[in-house]
Amino acid sequence: MSQIRKDPLSGRHVLIAAGRAERPGHSTTVAASEPCPFCAGNESMTPPEVFAIRKNIEAGTIGWSVRIVPNKYPALLRNAGEQRRIEGFYAGAPALGAHEVVIESSEHIVNMALLSKGDFAIVLQAYRARLQQLRSEKQWSYLLVYKNQGARAGATLEHIHSQIIALPDVPQQTTEEIDNNRNYFERYGRCLSCQMIEQESINRSRLVIDDGHFVAICPFASRFAYENWILPKRHTSLFENGSEEDLIHLAGVLREMLIRLDRAVDHLSFNYVIHTAPSDSDDDRDYHWRIEILPRISTPAGFEWGSGCFINPVAPEAAALRLGNLG
Amino acid sequence: MSQIRKDPLSGRHVLIAAGRAERPGHSTTVAASEPCPFCAGNESMTPPEVFAIRKNIEAGTIGWSVRIVPNKYPALLRNAGEQRRIEGFYAGAPALGAHEVVIESSEHIVNMALLSKGDFAIVLQAYRARLQQLRSEKQWSYLLVYKNQGARAGATLEHIHSQIIALPDVPQQTTEEIDNNRNYFERYGRCLSCQMIEQESINRSRLVIDDGHFVAICPFASRFAYENWILPKRHTSLFENGSEEDLIHLAGVLREMLIRLDRAVDHLSFNYVIHTAPSDSDDDRDYHWRIEILPRISTPAGFEWGSGCFINPVAPEAAALRLGNLG
Repeated sequence: MSQIRKDPLSGRHVLIAAGRAERPGHSTTVAASEPCPFCAGNESMTPPEVFAIRKNIEAGTIGWSVRIVPNKYPALLRNAGEQRRIEGFYAGAPALGAHEVVIESSEHIVNMALLSKGDFAIVLQAYRARLQQLRSEKQWSYLLVYKNQGARAGATLEHIHSQIIALPDVPQQTTEEIDNNRNYFERYGRCLSCQMIEQESINRSRLVIDDGHFVAICPFASRFAYENWILPKRHTSLFENGSEEDLIHLAGVLREMLIRLDRAVDHLSFNYVIHTAPSDSDDDRDYHWRIEILPRISTPAGFEWGSGCFINPVAPEAAALRLGNLG
Repeated sequence: MSQIRKDPLSGRHVLIAAGRAERPGHSTTVAASEPCPFCAGNESMTPPEVFAIRKNIEAGTIGWSVRIVPNKYPALLRNAGEQRRIEGFYAGAPALGAHEVVIESSEHIVNMALLSKGDFAIVLQAYRARLQQLRSEKQWSYLLVYKNQGARAGATLEHIHSQIIALPDVPQQTTEEIDNNRNYFERYGRCLSCQMIEQESINRSRLVIDDGHFVAICPFASRFAYENWILPKRHTSLFENGSEEDLIHLAGVLREMLIRLDRAVDHLSFNYVIHTAPSDSDDDRDYHWRIEILPRISTPAGFEWGSGCFINPVAPEAAALRLGNLG
């Protein structure tokens, strides 16, 4: 049984997910497992799908483009029960939540940058649709889409995929960010991210792409070498509220950034995360959704775990210059 | 010029240390560089030492046991200047601080667990002496000792070594921990860590070692598989205030834990960090010093970066049972 536990010293939450030690690869290497459970034809190797996009359904084919299935080794359980476990001054509870896998191609592709712009749009449509469904279940306060590509990014299967989690409570990190946003708004009458986008558009030294709808920037306090964020220029809180046109623009910018990172970094491994608002409102003034792309070149080490500060050996201005020149 | 920058959304601090990209290894592998700059005879390959322990000084030999030198690729600079850089709504400043390397053996040893108990005590004496010196400089509010051993833990040189940093300001993570401690003390009239040690000593399911002076436990909310903490049983705030007897007991417990981890985990990479109080007082009721040993088996991935929660696939109770049985 997975548990969520709180460290009394730091306030940090941890999912103790003992079942996950059985999963393939243990992330020391990415298993090129044969047969691959994510390839077309091997659908029976995964739990039954909860969502799919089929390109040619009208032509009577059964081929899928994107499939979403429950994670076979979930860190969270939908039927985790209600009982809180208190052990002396420790607080723990069954790890309630949804944990799903988005299989992003029926073919055995291992690098997302190889997908076409149309394929990217279909993947984003799948994220959007599934987040909307999870939101409608009403029991989740926090939704997160994330991708691990490459062994150094923690991937255990190489076939391109992302994961979606839904949690009943908003994690401390997100609560703190919302507090910072709220304080900024109360002080300056403006969304912090809107202000940041404006400043980066004027300064331009950390701006990589501006397609009129989205910007891609290397953030001022990047934790990772070549870290970059994609944000909608118009203030919106919910990724999953994006229009068809929004998704097509986003598909173009996200694909372009992954292609440029692939050129800039040998053997690129990366994570990306989609931060969408905990609230149901698309014009929540305290939240501006974004994608963070986090290349994994060096690894956080003793200094980072000890102090909570990151060391980044590549200045964001240098990263933006290089990524800009690769366009 | 290194900079310390604050992310306005999260409040997170980052050291932008562009010079460090030149250091060997880039942490994809640990360089077995030949000749090794940390071996006896190659002292001229490092900056001049700031501290050393020589075993046989009275016998007229020049052999050293432990040497401390400034980091050749520092993330922090002692002469960083004073000027704060404000760029629009961003806050950055020159990265002022000390960043030193503790070379823990004159021989080319790559696994600290192979040192004798006496050698461990000498290493701890060197940490203690250097922290006392840095503390006496009066300009540092935060001191941290940390070790990276193995490529997966971010080490770039294999010869055993640790690092010491000194910062003018206390990082947010430590400030939050002190706040949690203070709140606990105000509510329950007791140090949170003292309470934790008592509870673990009664419960015993996460207790690995109790030598009467120190306990080694797998903490309730361990982030990492086989994570363990060593704490003094008597309430003390400052690692560097430890007596000779304290260090000898600690040397025994630390060595024993590293030996057991080495047996429990194939190709062990790990970080350890020594958390000592920011304050000058050894009986600061809001701080209880500790060592955290963090094995690096899987890597934090999209879920961790996105949510700020960790997923740990090995329950601390299972880890403690295994480490207990390896004694």
